[in-house]
Amino acid sequence: MGFTEVAATRRSVHQYSDDPIDRSTLDTIFETATLAPSGYNLQPWEFLVLRDDETKTALKEVASGQEHVVDADTAVVILGNTDPMAHAETVFDDWLAKEYIPNEDVRDTLLDNVEAMAGMSEAERRVWTTRSSALAAMTLMYAAWEHGVASCPMEGFDDDALVQTFDIPDGYEPVMIVTLGYPDEEASDIENERKGRRPIENVVHYESFDPSAETTLETPDIGG
Amino acid sequence: MGFTEVAATRRSVHQYSDDPIDRSTLDTIFETATLAPSGYNLQPWEFLVLRDDETKTALKEVASGQEHVVDADTAVVILGNTDPMAHAETVFDDWLAKEYIPNEDVRDTLLDNVEAMAGMSEAERRVWTTRSSALAAMTLMYAAWEHGVASCPMEGFDDDALVQTFDIPDGYEPVMIVTLGYPDEEASDIENERKGRRPIENVVHYESFDPSAETTLETPDIGG
Repeated sequence: MGFTEVAATRRSVHQYSDDPIDRSTLDTIFETATLAPSGYNLQPWEFLVLRDDETKTALKEVASGQEHVVDADTAVVILGNTDPMAHAETVFDDWLAKEYIPNEDVRDTLLDNVEAMAGMSEAERRVWTTRSSALAAMTLMYAAWEHGVASCPMEGFDDDALVQTFDIPDGYEPVMIVTLGYPDEEASDIENERKGRRPIENVVHYESFDPSAETTLETPDIGG
Repeated sequence: MGFTEVAATRRSVHQYSDDPIDRSTLDTIFETATLAPSGYNLQPWEFLVLRDDETKTALKEVASGQEHVVDADTAVVILGNTDPMAHAETVFDDWLAKEYIPNEDVRDTLLDNVEAMAGMSEAERRVWTTRSSALAAMTLMYAAWEHGVASCPMEGFDDDALVQTFDIPDGYEPVMIVTLGYPDEEASDIENERKGRRPIENVVHYESFDPSAETTLETPDIGG
């Protein structure tokens, strides 16, 4: 299906069928997710993928007990590396080899830029990795849906408990949880009318920024 | 085109043709962008859309002088509202009307939850709005590309100068700049081999998180 249809029919699904996702389908979904862009192509994302009942139950416990974490075939914790330098050298060697940059001097300047970024405060580093990791998370959800695999993004879990439970080393930000699974035939998230969206007249501001104080919502009707 | 093809052929493009984007095409792209999911469907995103030479030049000045900001037909500043409560009441009324929640008590509990989130530190609020706003940014770029409109996401601009130049009120985080335009016929970003990606063997971790210390890259070959 075309992208507009993928975006328009994607829903955040909490009720899943028992049908398992093939490993080859998961591989394709993750391969597509890694095609997301990222700042300097630094790809700070890591995916902790939980499919066993035991690990999904442990995740549920740090995610406000939400049942769909266990009911879904797969729960993915998107982790963001907060160190911009982690992959920088290899990435810029690739740019040089493919002629995105003309010579080693430019490569070295880029490395200096990223090294300067790596000196950001911890707060800035969290924002930095969240930005690119969320681009991959969104790509993951669309890739899944193209294969009929529904998803639900979650935030608001207990970061510290998650880090402790899964023994996440320092330097990784838990950005988001995404559940993946084939939707239940009668999933209310699909049956119900789509949740409203703020209309483009309110969110798109041409040439100057004059935010609307009022909130209105429209029920989307494009593409299905 | 199917989503895998959209993701596989999307490139971050710096060289644009002079062909203008129709306003109706822009409207469709922004409508699709608003279909992105967000935490509690709170939709913190706002789009400052610059098409005049004067405003694009002003943006270039706070974006390290990068020429493609002006060369692109349109430059979009994605701003994230850092106040989770901004749209919460209207959003939960919509949930109630569409039976995503059973009654007003649940609506009030949700409002209490979001009000508690609104008490987060400034650093947490920035991470919070970056997360959902980046989901919309990614959706915007795929929606554009389905219409043949190329994009380039940018970070690392001068936040403070941007806020001052465009008179952005307190409470909005400049999350990302996205340029939009039809690609130049000989755009090197499209002609060159695709930038490498960290292979799924390195970024996908089943059941426990054991990040690889080594960086390897593969040149993607899926879907085009």
